[in-house]
Amino acid sequence: MRDLRKAEPLFDGIRAKSRAHLSAAITLLESTLEADMQEAQKLIGMCLPFSGNSLRIGITGVPGVGKSSFIEVFGQIVIGKGKRLAVLAIDPSSERSGGSILGDKTRMEHLSQLDEVFIRPSAAGNTLGGVARKTRETIILCEAAGFEVLFIETVGVGQSEIMVHSMVDFFLLLLLAGAGDELQGIKRGIMEMADGLAVTKADGDNVKRAQLAAREIKNAIHLFPPTENGWIPEVKSVSALERSGIGEIWEMIDRFDRLTKTNGSFTYKRQTQDLYWMEETLKEKLIYGLHHDPDVKAYKKVIESQLLAGEISAFDAADRLYHLYKKDK
Amino acid sequence: MRDLRKAEPLFDGIRAKSRAHLSAAITLLESTLEADMQEAQKLIGMCLPFSGNSLRIGITGVPGVGKSSFIEVFGQIVIGKGKRLAVLAIDPSSERSGGSILGDKTRMEHLSQLDEVFIRPSAAGNTLGGVARKTRETIILCEAAGFEVLFIETVGVGQSEIMVHSMVDFFLLLLLAGAGDELQGIKRGIMEMADGLAVTKADGDNVKRAQLAAREIKNAIHLFPPTENGWIPEVKSVSALERSGIGEIWEMIDRFDRLTKTNGSFTYKRQTQDLYWMEETLKEKLIYGLHHDPDVKAYKKVIESQLLAGEISAFDAADRLYHLYKKDK
Repeated sequence: MRDLRKAEPLFDGIRAKSRAHLSAAITLLESTLEADMQEAQKLIGMCLPFSGNSLRIGITGVPGVGKSSFIEVFGQIVIGKGKRLAVLAIDPSSERSGGSILGDKTRMEHLSQLDEVFIRPSAAGNTLGGVARKTRETIILCEAAGFEVLFIETVGVGQSEIMVHSMVDFFLLLLLAGAGDELQGIKRGIMEMADGLAVTKADGDNVKRAQLAAREIKNAIHLFPPTENGWIPEVKSVSALERSGIGEIWEMIDRFDRLTKTNGSFTYKRQTQDLYWMEETLKEKLIYGLHHDPDVKAYKKVIESQLLAGEISAFDAADRLYHLYKKDK
Repeated sequence: MRDLRKAEPLFDGIRAKSRAHLSAAITLLESTLEADMQEAQKLIGMCLPFSGNSLRIGITGVPGVGKSSFIEVFGQIVIGKGKRLAVLAIDPSSERSGGSILGDKTRMEHLSQLDEVFIRPSAAGNTLGGVARKTRETIILCEAAGFEVLFIETVGVGQSEIMVHSMVDFFLLLLLAGAGDELQGIKRGIMEMADGLAVTKADGDNVKRAQLAAREIKNAIHLFPPTENGWIPEVKSVSALERSGIGEIWEMIDRFDRLTKTNGSFTYKRQTQDLYWMEETLKEKLIYGLHHDPDVKAYKKVIESQLLAGEISAFDAADRLYHLYKKDK
């Protein structure tokens, strides 16, 4: 095997659909060594023309909703349609959630043994922006390696699901049926972002409760404002245990795919996402530069405490920090 | 009357509760002359220690929902509680909405004649950031002038309601009862931001329909994730024509006020908003500086078209623009 920290051999391996090369390439992406970062960027540039051809599906839900079991069965259905599947997990707050979405292979026993499947644990990164970048770059690599369906999995408790929503074509929210607290733990605003919702664990004694919850959520969804792309979000109940209802999720996504590709909103959304990430990255770079300026660092706490004490306005505070930053530039 | 373009006389007038001075001060805020802007900033600084003591209520809803009629009656109820009231309107897209929320006095005939009421049309501004700044500064001036309740009114069709949500204590969403399209026109995500919802025009033949809509929305709200402040959003039906249900809206807001002031979330929210506006203003200043850099201006279109053609990634595009900006600095 040639050097797995160089762009060219990794690119050749990725295009030859080698999972070992893809895995090594993602590891390279996560390196913080200058030489590795340069090779990684070169590799991304090489893969970019071969990317974009997958269906990117975001899957979110609180810990305990049964994401792994769902993905285990859902993944097999996708494979059954003749598709190659990559599963990526995002968990910027892995300490807090106790590693519940580590995406490790032990969670998805059958899926992880299939040749058509690539499973990759959570992207590392200290900032949400860093995780976003690595995940978006991993998507490019997976697409260049010929994966046709991508699952981007995250927990629905922090900022990460907003990030995932901004990088996928279809956003699926998994929900637990409960007694009046169906959505405990899900962040407000996430429900309205979903293109599809599935109430999990619709099996055994729980079937009626799950179906009732799905019906209630359907009524709620019906009251939401219409989406811009003409798609009406759908609600289903599913059981990974009994393998029921999950095929319908794929059919739903397939309908979505055909609708949005026909009416042009698929491409429009991808382009909007590209411009969004460009602007977000710019803002992050600029804000990072500002907050690491020695003068800003020296006075920021003082200015913030004046702001919180009501001595200066938020706009004054911003003015002062900005001028501290600009004065030597 | 002393010079109404200088901070000191304006400040004296504002503290003496002169509406003429308050009005002149807001006009000064909107001036783009350098000398005026300096006096305006001086005035804000003088007023700041006397601000913060009002209850800031955001009111939003699509054109046609009956915002003016609602505010006309609601305002009189607030006045009846012995409060002084200021009504500010925000409409960054006034062309599009056909001036439906101009906040002009003809819309609120009775209210505009009361001594305890100050009504101010839409703040001018080309950018949402500019409008936000002027509105936040106008709030400071109104509070220094002794207004105890502020209505910040906007339409629920653009970005402006997210901005308003970030500067008020209580966010009220007005809704129209309709046949299955209750929320046509409201932007997705707004429903989950509301602290209170009111279905309007619950009068005559429409009473039952409005009550049914309120009940349906209540069921939907019940499925939403819990709020961080412990408040459960309430849904009412109201009629401005028959003056019914609107007193209950004030009672709702009063309960909210007491709860959030008792559990500390009132102050916490205000401080979070201050830090949010500081960061947002900083980002806006930095992005503005970048996009007005001659090199960035010269190459931005090219870089964006490479991005949209899939030749470079969003992160590459950001890198290139950032380096163009930083290279001479």
